[in-house]
Amino acid sequence: MKNYKGYLIDLDGTMYRGKEKIEEAGDFVHRLKDNGIPYLFVTNNSSRRPEQVAEKLQNFDIPAAPEQVFTTSMATASYIYERKNDASIYVIGEEGIRNALEEKGLSLVDENPDFVVVGIDRSITYEKLALGCLGVRNGAVFISTNGDIAIPTERGLLPGNGSLTSVITVSTQTEPIFIGKPESIIMEQALEVLGVPKEDTLMVGDNYHTDILAGMNAGLDTLLVHTGVTSEEDLKRYDKQPTFTIGSLSNWKI
Amino acid sequence: MKNYKGYLIDLDGTMYRGKEKIEEAGDFVHRLKDNGIPYLFVTNNSSRRPEQVAEKLQNFDIPAAPEQVFTTSMATASYIYERKNDASIYVIGEEGIRNALEEKGLSLVDENPDFVVVGIDRSITYEKLALGCLGVRNGAVFISTNGDIAIPTERGLLPGNGSLTSVITVSTQTEPIFIGKPESIIMEQALEVLGVPKEDTLMVGDNYHTDILAGMNAGLDTLLVHTGVTSEEDLKRYDKQPTFTIGSLSNWKI
Repeated sequence: MKNYKGYLIDLDGTMYRGKEKIEEAGDFVHRLKDNGIPYLFVTNNSSRRPEQVAEKLQNFDIPAAPEQVFTTSMATASYIYERKNDASIYVIGEEGIRNALEEKGLSLVDENPDFVVVGIDRSITYEKLALGCLGVRNGAVFISTNGDIAIPTERGLLPGNGSLTSVITVSTQTEPIFIGKPESIIMEQALEVLGVPKEDTLMVGDNYHTDILAGMNAGLDTLLVHTGVTSEEDLKRYDKQPTFTIGSLSNWKI
Repeated sequence: MKNYKGYLIDLDGTMYRGKEKIEEAGDFVHRLKDNGIPYLFVTNNSSRRPEQVAEKLQNFDIPAAPEQVFTTSMATASYIYERKNDASIYVIGEEGIRNALEEKGLSLVDENPDFVVVGIDRSITYEKLALGCLGVRNGAVFISTNGDIAIPTERGLLPGNGSLTSVITVSTQTEPIFIGKPESIIMEQALEVLGVPKEDTLMVGDNYHTDILAGMNAGLDTLLVHTGVTSEEDLKRYDKQPTFTIGSLSNWKI
C-alpha cells in the first residue's frame, strides 16, 4: 500500500459524532502528527470559524491548530475574492461565513450585491430570503456554501444548507454554484493549503456522497471509514468505489 | 359564442394588481351580478380568510360576498378533512390556512402530525422548517397549498410558497401534494361550490401557468385576460392555447 504524504480529513462522522468523540479517530490523528505527516480538516459546516472548530477538536484531544481547519466558508470567500477582490456580497448565514468574507476584506451589503451567498442560517427569515431572491434576480452571482440536504442532530435530520438554498433556486429559477464537498472547488483550495501533490494525498471521510465523491472529483485516492453516514450496505449500491474502505481508523496504517 | 352559466375568476392580475384596481374587471363582475350569473373567486393566496378577501374586493367596488371566495386554504382543509376528519396537522402558514384548518375541526400540533401543510409564511423560521421536515420524515403526508414560485410586490418578485415548500421537499426528498392552481384539486372543489356543471363554466385569469392550466387540467373552457402576468408574446410560446384571449374584461360579452 502507498504511503500517503498528506491527508484531507472530514470532521462529523469521521472525527466525532455530534458531541461524541470517535476514540480511534483521535489515535489516528496523533499518529499522523507524530510522523510529521501534514493533514487538513475539510468541512462543509459554514457556521463556525476555524478557531472554533480547532477548539472542539482539541477538547476531544485531537491535535488541531486553526490553520489545520479548512471550512467551506473559507473556500467560498477565496472563490469570490479571486473573481472580484472588492466584491459586495449579500450573505445569508451564521458567524463562520460572515467572518470568512469579512477577513477577505469583502463588503457585506443588503442591496445590489455582486454575489448572493447562502450558508446554513438557523436564524433564517422571510426577509433574508427575499433579499437573496431580489439580489439574484438583479443579476448577482448565486453561490451556496454547500448542498447538504440535512443535518444530523439528536432530534433527527434537520434542514441542511442545500434545502435552504433551494428557496432562492426555485424562486429565481437560477442554479447556484456550490462550493463545498462533493465539488472540486473546496478540494482544489484545500490541496493548495495542505501543500502536498494530489497524487500523494488521501481524502478520508464517512460520507460517500460528500467526502468520497469530493475526493474522486478532485482526482484523489479516497478512504471511506464506516463510523458515520455511509454503511457497508449503502456502499454496495454505488458503481464507483472508494480506493479503500475500513471499519475504523485504528485499522489504517500510515 | 357559448353563453357560460358560471364563472371561476382569479384575483391578482385579473381583478386588481396588488393595491390597484383593474377598472374593467369591476364592471365585468357587476354585469355578472346584474345578470344573475353565479361566480366564485378562486385564489392561490393562502394567507387570508375569505372575509378578508371579500372585503378587499368590496373596497374596489367589486361585488363579492365571503361565500363567493374560494381560497387554496379552504381547498386544503377540505382535502384533508375528506381523507381523515380527525387529522392532526403541523402547519407552516399565516392566518388564512390556520383558520381554514381549524374551521374544519382539525387539530394543529407540532409533533407527530398526520399531515404537514405548507402555505406562505412571512414569519418563517428555521424551527418551523425543522418541525416540517421531522413530521414528513416521520411519515406525515406532505401537502403544499400552492406551488407559486414568486409573489409580485412593489419591491419585485419575492419568494412564493412553492419556493418555501422546496426546503422540505429537498431536505426529505419527498414531493408534496400541491392543492392550488394549476392542480385540479382546487378546481374540482371550486366547481362543487359554484354549483354549475363544468361544461357550462368558464375559468378566467391572467396567468397561463396557474389559471389557464388549472382550467385545462379540470376540463373547463378558459379565458386569458392580458391585465397581469402572461403577455401576448409569452402566450405565443405555449402549445395548448386558452379557449379565449382578450386584452381587457370590458371586451367580454356575457
